[in-house]
Amino acid sequence: MDAERTEIGTIGEFGLIAELTKKIKLQSPRTVVGVGDDAAVLASTESGKRTVISTDLLCEGVHFDLMYAPLKHLGYKAIVVNVSDICAMNARPTQVVVGLALSNRFSVEAAKELYAGMLLACERYKVDLVGGDTTSSRSGLMISVTAIGEVDELKTTLRSGAKPGELLVASGELGGAFMGLQVLEREKHVFEEAPGAQPDLTGFESLLERQLKPEARLDVVEELAKLDLVPSSMIDISDGLASEALHLAAASGCGVRIYEEKIPMNEQMYETARAFNLDPTLCTLSGGEDYELLFTVPQERFEDIRNHPMFSIIGHMTDDPNERALITRNGMETELKAQGWDGFKGED
Amino acid sequence: MDAERTEIGTIGEFGLIAELTKKIKLQSPRTVVGVGDDAAVLASTESGKRTVISTDLLCEGVHFDLMYAPLKHLGYKAIVVNVSDICAMNARPTQVVVGLALSNRFSVEAAKELYAGMLLACERYKVDLVGGDTTSSRSGLMISVTAIGEVDELKTTLRSGAKPGELLVASGELGGAFMGLQVLEREKHVFEEAPGAQPDLTGFESLLERQLKPEARLDVVEELAKLDLVPSSMIDISDGLASEALHLAAASGCGVRIYEEKIPMNEQMYETARAFNLDPTLCTLSGGEDYELLFTVPQERFEDIRNHPMFSIIGHMTDDPNERALITRNGMETELKAQGWDGFKGED
Repeated sequence: MDAERTEIGTIGEFGLIAELTKKIKLQSPRTVVGVGDDAAVLASTESGKRTVISTDLLCEGVHFDLMYAPLKHLGYKAIVVNVSDICAMNARPTQVVVGLALSNRFSVEAAKELYAGMLLACERYKVDLVGGDTTSSRSGLMISVTAIGEVDELKTTLRSGAKPGELLVASGELGGAFMGLQVLEREKHVFEEAPGAQPDLTGFESLLERQLKPEARLDVVEELAKLDLVPSSMIDISDGLASEALHLAAASGCGVRIYEEKIPMNEQMYETARAFNLDPTLCTLSGGEDYELLFTVPQERFEDIRNHPMFSIIGHMTDDPNERALITRNGMETELKAQGWDGFKGED
Repeated sequence: MDAERTEIGTIGEFGLIAELTKKIKLQSPRTVVGVGDDAAVLASTESGKRTVISTDLLCEGVHFDLMYAPLKHLGYKAIVVNVSDICAMNARPTQVVVGLALSNRFSVEAAKELYAGMLLACERYKVDLVGGDTTSSRSGLMISVTAIGEVDELKTTLRSGAKPGELLVASGELGGAFMGLQVLEREKHVFEEAPGAQPDLTGFESLLERQLKPEARLDVVEELAKLDLVPSSMIDISDGLASEALHLAAASGCGVRIYEEKIPMNEQMYETARAFNLDPTLCTLSGGEDYELLFTVPQERFEDIRNHPMFSIIGHMTDDPNERALITRNGMETELKAQGWDGFKGED
């Protein structure tokens, strides 16, 4: 895995923690004490602010495959997926704590690569890594990240605030991360059948980046603030558009209608899906890990959104909680179904 | 593992989360939104208060053995070990978020047992379970807990505040959890050699409870508040007394002297250690998981501590940072060594 290999056992848990954390630079004025004590210490929040907290586990063989996910990218992604949850509250991430369980297959150098990716993401999103736990595991790698963020009390966006008639808006483009995964899986199979084969990944760069090194849409949170626009509900698109739209509808007691032709997808995703004999729309509806934001706004804010390069109006909420409609390009109405990836349903 | 067995795959990730979280009752007035959104939402802290955050990972085969750790106890312990870290900051725990990775060896009923133990601990310590992530794992069970707490700014106890001449104080009794583990390991070996054998655990109840269902010393934090005593430094004893005392000394730039005869141990631990041919003192110094608190106080507070039933003065801090002394019962001076359990050094 790496040229130099130091066994973790030779430096022990405390040695490893010292190695990993020595490059941490704290940035938030609220961080009083970072790693190195029993707990991190944060100064009190300003009044009128709320603290948001989210946690995620990434497990080898379930959420990532080290055969094609470089450790540094994986570390980056582990932070990003949690930052994305914080963004979905319309909040700014401020701190993270990180748990790492590593089997003896991993060297000190490998752990440092992983941490380097995490610290890079922390720098990118101006988040302090303030605590952690590092331990051995009997098999494989597991990463747990808990992210903390802050948001004005009146700007907090839950999943439950959407109202009938409101516009359903997605940021960015969808389906790319899922198609990136398909490309990687294909090349993995080629490699497994003919171990000498070189992977052919040219032309898929943007899809691979969406899969391996996604970004959280903190810029969307910032743009919403500039527009003085507080979504009535918001969620991040981690499991596929259909699943997330249904979450917003269910939490808000609304129905939802999505128009296929309005779903944002880029040409590379579309062409690759076609080449793989996959329905591009289904890739956006059921493919996960886009980490775009999906939110609702009152119709009065239509003008702010409709020509904004960051946003696509893809449908609207309705007053019938049982309505879950996808209007296809040819005008047919079908049921919107959540077929998002579900770790418990076994292999994809 | 249980009479009824529902495969997690039959209800899926969202079904499992709904099953697990439906019994949660929020208690803290600061918890605005608990589980069910992208992140939990907490009201702003009062001014002058600080937020503390700690995270821990528990991995099957490393931190626990399901052959003798009942799932409900394990869930309880997973919360307690994090609450203990919060107590070590002289803080009160307020919220936890929980990540669970379960292999398909675990049923819905097993996950519910685990969660029942976590919720029991939350109730006991008046902590809200406000968020989580539940996923599948390729092998075994992994539990990640992040705990949040609050403490008055001026009462926050770091590891680094001890000064030369100050008294070193431990709460409770030490070594019991380690001896409990020895008893369980012995019975496991007996069982493995003769699978029909019934475990003989009578007479070891208090040691087993220390190992399988430990408590965090929130009562010590409360007692310190009553005594109007803010320790100059504090740590929880998770890795053995020697390791923790050396952490306080190193973080504070002091030396430390511990008197063997002052180390608190109870008769059952002492007798069992003897019966197992183990040195009882070594069990307290190097055995982990006592979750007692170790702290330093100025000599002026001697009278508050010396006859207090919760506390034992076991030594003092010195001005030579290289001093790490254990004074044995016969008056010999030996070096205090951290030989605490270290997950990366392989099997114990």
